[in-house]
Amino acid sequence: MNSPNPSHVPSPFGAVPRLAGITAPGAPTVPLAVLGLGMMGTALASALLQAGHQVTVWNRTAAKTGPLVAQGALPADSPAAAVSASKLIIACLLTNDHVQEVLDGVGDQLAGRTIVNLTNGTPARARELAAWAAEHGASYLDGGIMAVPQMIAGPHAYVFYSGDERAFRTHQPTLAAFGDTKFVGADPGLAALYDIALLTGMYGMTVGVMQAFALARTENIPARELSELLVPWIGAMLAGVPADAEAIDSDQHLTDVSSLAVNHAAIPNFLAAFRDQGVDPLFFGPLQEVLDRAVKEGYGGDGLSRLATLFAR
Amino acid sequence: MNSPNPSHVPSPFGAVPRLAGITAPGAPTVPLAVLGLGMMGTALASALLQAGHQVTVWNRTAAKTGPLVAQGALPADSPAAAVSASKLIIACLLTNDHVQEVLDGVGDQLAGRTIVNLTNGTPARARELAAWAAEHGASYLDGGIMAVPQMIAGPHAYVFYSGDERAFRTHQPTLAAFGDTKFVGADPGLAALYDIALLTGMYGMTVGVMQAFALARTENIPARELSELLVPWIGAMLAGVPADAEAIDSDQHLTDVSSLAVNHAAIPNFLAAFRDQGVDPLFFGPLQEVLDRAVKEGYGGDGLSRLATLFAR
Repeated sequence: MNSPNPSHVPSPFGAVPRLAGITAPGAPTVPLAVLGLGMMGTALASALLQAGHQVTVWNRTAAKTGPLVAQGALPADSPAAAVSASKLIIACLLTNDHVQEVLDGVGDQLAGRTIVNLTNGTPARARELAAWAAEHGASYLDGGIMAVPQMIAGPHAYVFYSGDERAFRTHQPTLAAFGDTKFVGADPGLAALYDIALLTGMYGMTVGVMQAFALARTENIPARELSELLVPWIGAMLAGVPADAEAIDSDQHLTDVSSLAVNHAAIPNFLAAFRDQGVDPLFFGPLQEVLDRAVKEGYGGDGLSRLATLFAR
Repeated sequence: MNSPNPSHVPSPFGAVPRLAGITAPGAPTVPLAVLGLGMMGTALASALLQAGHQVTVWNRTAAKTGPLVAQGALPADSPAAAVSASKLIIACLLTNDHVQEVLDGVGDQLAGRTIVNLTNGTPARARELAAWAAEHGASYLDGGIMAVPQMIAGPHAYVFYSGDERAFRTHQPTLAAFGDTKFVGADPGLAALYDIALLTGMYGMTVGVMQAFALARTENIPARELSELLVPWIGAMLAGVPADAEAIDSDQHLTDVSSLAVNHAAIPNFLAAFRDQGVDPLFFGPLQEVLDRAVKEGYGGDGLSRLATLFAR
């Protein structure tokens, strides 16, 4: 489990020697483990190495440790080896099923250590893992990363954390290597909730944009041409979101901008256009059902902000 | 059908007298009709009046003419009366079924006139209406308005037009009263296609944002707090859309940012979180099906730009 000669490891990052001088001021020097070296786990481990930490890395497919070993990481050949070498264990696996499987194998070694789970998951699953960790004497923080791997350690990346607040305060200077840290509460499920909420906004936009590109392709309109219209248009509509938020918080949804009744009348055109052009309508069917109900129940004069309450039933 | 005393008409806009001096330089003085006075039709008629045009207005519910009459519009008590008074007929009704119904009643009066249909509709329907107009000796332009009513005549509003290019060139100075004019082709269906594509991007974002607010509400997180995170986050993701467009146009979808395989693994968390929190998952079910197929067919290493081709089958 100790480091082979890094110079023998091919690295797409180039061989970056560890420099003692780049440890962040005040950063604790607890030994760390990163479990899971997909695109995101690799970016996290790399950020910790750049910040001067001692990092042990483990991945199911051992070959993925190579580029990080070239940067100074210590490869572990099992989760147990990684955990036993570390006080702070950062997990970034494909799913929380993988996290539970890995942790099950090292349960008797976890007492007194802190687990920071940055795997995408649900609030309920985070609460289960926190309870499981407590039973094994470990502190647990759940996290939701608001960045793509390329943004990690950059100025716009941040991570939501929730769970054991003392563990968060202790390790915040270390976790700051990834980007800004936002502690959202002692309920371990909250980081996943914020994460899922923000990613849902992103997925909605992405799905809509990709449907738009798919429609444009049916008439040989270049994506680039559409993109030049689509980006400022969505940007302009995005500027209206704070007003929607205000409408939701005050429960005042009446509008003179775009009523549910007008949207309700327009959706059949979208369904027909998607059918005619042979493109998957995705959310337009379910949205039509919600709007049918909304108009029937007398919400036709309300704006789109009303959807936030209509979706939650 | 002539104007009653405007001072007797209550107007939320205030009584705005028509001033001869505000006609836009070079604007033709053909008499115009606006059919349909919903929020958008009212904004269109108002913009034409502000630009100094003679505007006859008709609405199924006659009371809606009041505020415009106060601004100088001539009310018509039937579509036939409005059409016979006008060379350029602008329709903005709830649906194209309404447009067809209204036009059917005045078919024998349309020869030599131009119809500009700004009702939300499909490319196929626009082509049908254009063919119908041609049979009746009328020029036809279809349009897609990229603005909410409050933006009409403002610096950010624009309208797509397609169909009879000569009619567009003739009436462009008049149509410029609404905002910028973008002629996208002689195929009358194209304006609707651009309109539907851009609005789909907006609907996707709106649906995602409203789902996010609905999730936040389940844990009593104020919409305003979420909005302050959501708007910059979606803005940052929006900045990646031009790169997606390039990937689509070059058919090169391989990514080191976020692969379909990683997204495929994450979607079950969204479905579970929506189920746990009691919020409608809307597009996540259909998206999961598309991603299942994508991974099975070997596209797991591709980025989200691949969705534009996967949606179109």
